[in-house]
Amino acid sequence: MPVTNEDIVTRIEAASASYSSTFDKGHLALPPAKKYLLLTCMDARIDPARAFGIELGDAHVIRNAGASTKDALRSIIISQQLLATEAIAIVKHTGCGMLTFKNEDAYGVAEENLGVEARKELEERKLDFLPFPELTQAVRDDIEFLRGTKLVKDEVPISGWVYEVETGKTVRVV
Amino acid sequence: MPVTNEDIVTRIEAASASYSSTFDKGHLALPPAKKYLLLTCMDARIDPARAFGIELGDAHVIRNAGASTKDALRSIIISQQLLATEAIAIVKHTGCGMLTFKNEDAYGVAEENLGVEARKELEERKLDFLPFPELTQAVRDDIEFLRGTKLVKDEVPISGWVYEVETGKTVRVV
Repeated sequence: MPVTNEDIVTRIEAASASYSSTFDKGHLALPPAKKYLLLTCMDARIDPARAFGIELGDAHVIRNAGASTKDALRSIIISQQLLATEAIAIVKHTGCGMLTFKNEDAYGVAEENLGVEARKELEERKLDFLPFPELTQAVRDDIEFLRGTKLVKDEVPISGWVYEVETGKTVRVV
Repeated sequence: MPVTNEDIVTRIEAASASYSSTFDKGHLALPPAKKYLLLTCMDARIDPARAFGIELGDAHVIRNAGASTKDALRSIIISQQLLATEAIAIVKHTGCGMLTFKNEDAYGVAEENLGVEARKELEERKLDFLPFPELTQAVRDDIEFLRGTKLVKDEVPISGWVYEVETGKTVRVV
């Protein structure tokens, strides 16, 4: 059963009451204490804090469809240049939705669901959904993109990983 | 003390061993069970699963600098059109870094840290860092942006929230 908006509101309000009742981390500083950023997918099956061992306050966590470095570039620059993070971990995952379609499919679905005006807007925005056909190659390509831009320092360490949604394991690939 | 890349690798590998040893959620489906998406900031002080009551498998979680809907548009379209989410919650937060600078400041810092070639690349990409001067107005503006695009259905419920990094509370504003 999908939640209604009322369900979401109730759920967030209940979480807020519960979480804040024992909250004792109000002193944490804005810049990440461990000076790293982790980029992963928006996939509902990933809990980055637990799966990747991130303590509250330690690291920036960026999430988008497919853990795309291209799509995350704005956030990565802000994280590194304005908030002093010095290392990057990229975690894609098995069973990712980005493996299942091509740009033209997404344009077609948007037109079918939202109308021809939606397709026009996608075309005007030149929106690239950045799907990928192979998982570990996509991790490599995403790291190569960061290595190819002047907007990330050459010496920034970047590791690449695959999280297995079937097992809960995270395996290093780069 | 910042972590080294070796620290990050050790940390993720330890988390992987521990998390996977009791992992029993390998059966979860790709589309979010509760059919909603939550967009929040990459800020290190936010743990969305706990603070906002998200169970594993229930919702897409998108995170970028400032919880920007504009920057998240690609992921939002994929979430709604290809993975059938039907409602959106947007959570910005107190003490957000996006309140502290303007585009020109970020361009200046990038040039200082990374050189004039980096500024040129930012200009070529027309990169907008999307900072905002006021928090609750930014929540409203971000929702208005989604209401103004043809790429999100008019009837999609959208709620807007502010998470208080000082108290652990999440307060509804829209």
